[in-house]
Amino acid sequence: MHVQIAKNTTPKTLKPGISRRIAHLDKLLTAVITFENGPMEEPDPPHSHPHEQITYVAEGELYFFMDNKKHRLQQGDMFMVPSEMPHTIQTITPKVVLIDSFSPVREDFLKS
Amino acid sequence: MHVQIAKNTTPKTLKPGISRRIAHLDKLLTAVITFENGPMEEPDPPHSHPHEQITYVAEGELYFFMDNKKHRLQQGDMFMVPSEMPHTIQTITPKVVLIDSFSPVREDFLKS
Repeated sequence: MHVQIAKNTTPKTLKPGISRRIAHLDKLLTAVITFENGPMEEPDPPHSHPHEQITYVAEGELYFFMDNKKHRLQQGDMFMVPSEMPHTIQTITPKVVLIDSFSPVREDFLKS
Repeated sequence: MHVQIAKNTTPKTLKPGISRRIAHLDKLLTAVITFENGPMEEPDPPHSHPHEQITYVAEGELYFFMDNKKHRLQQGDMFMVPSEMPHTIQTITPKVVLIDSFSPVREDFLKS
């Protein structure tokens, strides 16, 4: 059995202005990613992963790019990324908070 | 392939003061549940489901009950519910918004 409550776990800094904290079980991982380096001058390079991803925009505004489309998203919006589908974002506001859920678990997030 | 973007989908009213909107892929479902009927006078009856659940508190304050413990949670906190573990909540503030992610997909949410 994993820990059963995460509360406000300590964020890990991924790079300057970007931090992440995670909670996971066996099949499911949720990451809170905070970008405080916005607005980005250009989108991040597209990436993909076998994991399915659903994201909730908790704070801020951003562009989400997938399947040759550009979507402007704000607090309360969600986007879905099927397995192996290339996608990326570009933050518009100085601060953006995304709630990224994945299945299966992003084992790479646990190691990094 | 499912739709790839959810944006701010229309919420469905579950009961007066409680609404839900969902996004899902094949293995993963995220539900945004808005409680505007708080504070609750007492906790909801405990419930359980085979699906794993991770919840992010997007707005408000609540008590989360699981495994004979009571946790006071606020915006930014997370909790994790293992498969088949009884749990419940009691909202403290008039409005609470929870981002509930599940794996596997809550097929019952799609039918109801």
